[in-house]
Amino acid sequence: MIQVGIIGGTGYVGAELVRLLSNHNKVKISGISSAQYKGKSISSIYPGFYGLNELVCESQQEVMEKSDLMFLALPSGLSESIVEKAIHKDKVCIDMGADFRFKNEALYKKWYGKSFLAHSLHEQAVYGLPELNREYIRKSQIIGNPGCYATSVELALLPLISGGLIEENGIIADCKSGVTGSGKNLTESSHFVNCNESFAPYKVANHRHTPEIEENLSNISKENVKLTFVPHLIPINRGILSTIYTTPKKPMDIEKVHEKYCEFYKKENFVKVLPLGEISKINNVRLSNYCHISLHFDEENNKLIVISCLDNMMKGSAGQGIQNMNILLGFDETEGLTDVPAIF
Amino acid sequence: MIQVGIIGGTGYVGAELVRLLSNHNKVKISGISSAQYKGKSISSIYPGFYGLNELVCESQQEVMEKSDLMFLALPSGLSESIVEKAIHKDKVCIDMGADFRFKNEALYKKWYGKSFLAHSLHEQAVYGLPELNREYIRKSQIIGNPGCYATSVELALLPLISGGLIEENGIIADCKSGVTGSGKNLTESSHFVNCNESFAPYKVANHRHTPEIEENLSNISKENVKLTFVPHLIPINRGILSTIYTTPKKPMDIEKVHEKYCEFYKKENFVKVLPLGEISKINNVRLSNYCHISLHFDEENNKLIVISCLDNMMKGSAGQGIQNMNILLGFDETEGLTDVPAIF
Amino acid sequence: MIQVGIIGGTGYVGAELVRLLSNHNKVKISGISSAQYKGKSISSIYPGFYGLNELVCESQQEVMEKSDLMFLALPSGLSESIVEKAIHKDKVCIDMGADFRFKNEALYKKWYGKSFLAHSLHEQAVYGLPELNREYIRKSQIIGNPGCYATSVELALLPLISGGLIEENGIIADCKSGVTGSGKNLTESSHFVNCNESFAPYKVANHRHTPEIEENLSNISKENVKLTFVPHLIPINRGILSTIYTTPKKPMDIEKVHEKYCEFYKKENFVKVLPLGEISKINNVRLSNYCHISLHFDEENNKLIVISCLDNMMKGSAGQGIQNMNILLGFDETEGLTDVPAIF
Amino acid sequence: MIQVGIIGGTGYVGAELVRLLSNHNKVKISGISSAQYKGKSISSIYPGFYGLNELVCESQQEVMEKSDLMFLALPSGLSESIVEKAIHKDKVCIDMGADFRFKNEALYKKWYGKSFLAHSLHEQAVYGLPELNREYIRKSQIIGNPGCYATSVELALLPLISGGLIEENGIIADCKSGVTGSGKNLTESSHFVNCNESFAPYKVANHRHTPEIEENLSNISKENVKLTFVPHLIPINRGILSTIYTTPKKPMDIEKVHEKYCEFYKKENFVKVLPLGEISKINNVRLSNYCHISLHFDEENNKLIVISCLDNMMKGSAGQGIQNMNILLGFDETEGLTDVPAIF
Repeated sequence: MIQVGIIGGTGYVGAELVRLLSNHNKVKISGISSAQYKGKSISSIYPGFYGLNELVCESQQEVMEKSDLMFLALPSGLSESIVEKAIHKDKVCIDMGADFRFKNEALYKKWYGKSFLAHSLHEQAVYGLPELNREYIRKSQIIGNPGCYATSVELALLPLISGGLIEENGIIADCKSGVTGSGKNLTESSHFVNCNESFAPYKVANHRHTPEIEENLSNISKENVKLTFVPHLIPINRGILSTIYTTPKKPMDIEKVHEKYCEFYKKENFVKVLPLGEISKINNVRLSNYCHISLHFDEENNKLIVISCLDNMMKGSAGQGIQNMNILLGFDETEGLTDVPAIF
Repeated sequence: MIQVGIIGGTGYVGAELVRLLSNHNKVKISGISSAQYKGKSISSIYPGFYGLNELVCESQQEVMEKSDLMFLALPSGLSESIVEKAIHKDKVCIDMGADFRFKNEALYKKWYGKSFLAHSLHEQAVYGLPELNREYIRKSQIIGNPGCYATSVELALLPLISGGLIEENGIIADCKSGVTGSGKNLTESSHFVNCNESFAPYKVANHRHTPEIEENLSNISKENVKLTFVPHLIPINRGILSTIYTTPKKPMDIEKVHEKYCEFYKKENFVKVLPLGEISKINNVRLSNYCHISLHFDEENNKLIVISCLDNMMKGSAGQGIQNMNILLGFDETEGLTDVPAIF
Repeated sequence: MIQVGIIGGTGYVGAELVRLLSNHNKVKISGISSAQYKGKSISSIYPGFYGLNELVCESQQEVMEKSDLMFLALPSGLSESIVEKAIHKDKVCIDMGADFRFKNEALYKKWYGKSFLAHSLHEQAVYGLPELNREYIRKSQIIGNPGCYATSVELALLPLISGGLIEENGIIADCKSGVTGSGKNLTESSHFVNCNESFAPYKVANHRHTPEIEENLSNISKENVKLTFVPHLIPINRGILSTIYTTPKKPMDIEKVHEKYCEFYKKENFVKVLPLGEISKINNVRLSNYCHISLHFDEENNKLIVISCLDNMMKGSAGQGIQNMNILLGFDETEGLTDVPAIF
Repeated sequence: MIQVGIIGGTGYVGAELVRLLSNHNKVKISGISSAQYKGKSISSIYPGFYGLNELVCESQQEVMEKSDLMFLALPSGLSESIVEKAIHKDKVCIDMGADFRFKNEALYKKWYGKSFLAHSLHEQAVYGLPELNREYIRKSQIIGNPGCYATSVELALLPLISGGLIEENGIIADCKSGVTGSGKNLTESSHFVNCNESFAPYKVANHRHTPEIEENLSNISKENVKLTFVPHLIPINRGILSTIYTTPKKPMDIEKVHEKYCEFYKKENFVKVLPLGEISKINNVRLSNYCHISLHFDEENNKLIVISCLDNMMKGSAGQGIQNMNILLGFDETEGLTDVPAIF
């Protein structure tokens, strides 16, 4: 059995990986590391694991040695040096943070404030959106797992951008996320009383996922794709919904666009293009790895509106990480990811 | 003391009017009517009134006779004939529904499926947005109280549109509302389990407040204002937040625009333009009649983003109705509306 | 493969069964019936199933014919006659409602207003709490699946009552449930605005699960067990937490009682007795079939407090139904039920 | 105008006092102090005050000098020395914490870990439950404002205990509170993701309000009153609901008990005894100073169940503080507290 380690196993992404891997039939969790909780069991941090998973946090070094593949679920900027060591030992790395999402170092530096340490690693790394890069993922040893918002916006726009159907400039992505997206840290904005019965934009037109989306969509376009992206916090635990406003280049037939989407995603397990007339809603994807996409046309204003939603901890993060792992290791891509949405 | 009646006193708008008028020092509630609950007390429907307000629902006729001024809180299309009778008896009417929001009968017919019954009433009627029409409201006998979404979008855009600062076409209003906005009726979309832990767009680019906003903004512009409007349901009780994307006509200095907003609203009690850098959030206006507006500039994409929020039951409905009543009756405009937001 | 049908497949219990059976490796859903939605697909009712499960609702008759085993997820009182037919055709029945929970017809009649139709069915039927009746379930053809509150209270008290450790009279069960417990119907009490930001007792000391709990606990005691049971509604989707106050008969050593619980449940997969000092909380069992139990002693008042929690749709209903099915059909008892709690 | 200062004006209790005093016609806020936020405006901490209240935090000393009356909204143990200084300067003090709630120093020491500094202050101090101590409050200079849970349990039991109608031992108070009750601090238990979709007991039979309740109820009884008290956290902002199980000493006629409650509270503005058959619910008191009480009898088990609810920030804290101030200063007791509940 393949041994899978989790570096940073006690944040939300790490814990979600533990949860999902508990039901995966082809791999075994070799260990989890945590600086903060070393020596403590995962079930003492998340009592939902009580009696089910009694893994004890170890050092990064200990976990690395026992693992064939590692998930790195660390704050941005901390993965690169670990990946470097791991690659030396010929291990596979899936980085859940931003360190390997960019090819353009200048962009990375502008938004994350750091240079690349080892350029060769970034040359090898593949951006882990399977619907875009499956064949590259299969052959890679380093995956930069996409951001949650980025996944929701890119999946929504891939068919339009790759088909050159919309203006590449002036795209508006109005996105809304549940609170797990901002992590386990205690902050003013995640205090219950501040979130509950509220709804709040943040980092207006200034969020780090903007350049990630632009880089990836530009790569498949002939033009520079530019978007205005505004994230908002919804008082729910899980889920992202993106309402995306685009301008068709030519007179548009919404049924033809819908066919194009269906065609584009027909072999994909995890992307569901809803029938025309239906609307994507967060409760229809929660606790699953599925992404729902619905299409709407405002004829009077010539706006094609694409609405996508997914569970930010699943297809937006840990679920997608495991999808990438399955591809890399040659498993069925849906292994461990077949739970249908929680419905209620 | 002025006698104020509420026709349709048991829906959410009616009940909110009762709540607010209970603390108003210059008027007295003469009676409330309800077809469904005739003979029942308001406290048997909303037990929060127990021991505080034991008004019993009467017929429309009974309430009309005892009232100098009437609020009509009825489903769209039911007010016009009542207003006609009331005007005959020289009573003042504030319609909380859509019957008197439109000057353009064709538009009203297109979106609400009905013709005007008595055109003269519509000629007299004033659209009750005090920040736009205060002087007309003062002299009118029929007020069409604005829609909740419409209020939030119009207050956000008035300074830009009246100043001719943005493109009148291509405005995007991505709006989010709490569940009281869809009323007291039992529907699939207001079932707790369907709303909670979800977030859902509805009537995508097809909501009745679109033409209301366009008509009112076009009236103060030299151009036809056109917008794409998408409403969403947030799992909270109260509050609307509108994220509005506009395109400046000329190179924009956000500080100058901010000054313009401050100037525009400096005499208004209920509109607060936040300092640059601050962001409007629903929990800062809940249970109050205030509207917060914040301004943000996406320089790279030349988008001016205006974010407004208000309590849909207050400035978005009943609170604004009372503000209109205060203006009409010559009271201090803030009478009964001085509660600061609930904070938490 | 065993063919499993669901009679009443579109209510919450039915839909949860569909969700869980979708991940069960040993059985196949033969069909689902619905009077209200006949001819419609389950995914048109619960769009979370879109593209994953396109079962179309059929008549009860059609589903029965294709099934080896049937779940009946119907309002109380509607199952008995269907079970009668099914037994004739030698099919196995798991009734999710109350029709087969009682041995005492008088009690059933008092609380549910109906007599037994066919006494022989009730003689065969087994109350489907595996931790109490596993061996009987294994050999039975009719299972009365326990109520959600009843499961949480009975699992909490079994070790105490069977050991004769507490006064059988004067037990207090203060229970709290999420809103899925009251089902899919549109009612005042499930309207979002009425639940949200509230918390409400209902059927105070007058809930139908009281006699169910009393009958089952009395069966394993030498005394008549009597309890005061007050349910409350929590503004969450899933979960039940029961705070149960009992009076020890003799001076109590909480550590010994804890050992007793651990011993009592040591072979059980789905009951977790928490370490002393820990407290059961709903978020630690959500979306799983586990029941957490914690023990607390108020020495000054000689009260032993048992706190149990579970997911009302899982161990409190559909999950337990599948556990019963696994036992009946000789599968591993945890088949299809291994998901760890959702944590967040 | 009376000058009122708030020491500790930026925690939830302090901010709620600012909110309420903003609508009080007989007093003026002289200043607010904050160690943490000195020099900052209250509106920079709670943006709901933006443009409405621009008070800037000062030192305790500065506030004290400008004030005739002071509210102390500090963590337990920090008020006593300030009150000592204030009394020297002949100022009136209402302490919102626990420092002046106890007459029994040993009890205070046991639960709060501190001795009394100046016994004479405690001799002067009055426990500020107006329904119990109104006449003493009127003449006092130091008020110990009751705890939120304590208020809800004491108001529920006063008529029974003072009438000697129930067993003084073995009372069970199962209480549930919204998250504002645990304050503004960032803690694991107030992180949105931990509260939301959960429900959790805490400090089981070990909460500091237990001795406060026991002392006050014992004072009006001939017996030592003893209760088992278990608090729980509800995922809502505001509100406490207490379900209290008591044992009548003699055969009980629930209608007579109900009459007794009505009689007991007939002159009270803020306590509403609901008609028999009605049930107290949190959404019927939110954002108001009212306490609802409902009565229920479990005849078979001889348990009288009293359910009380109130808004923990209002009647449970700041609202009651202002009620005490009104009594002390000879104002109408309802001044500034007439808001009806928010209903929704």
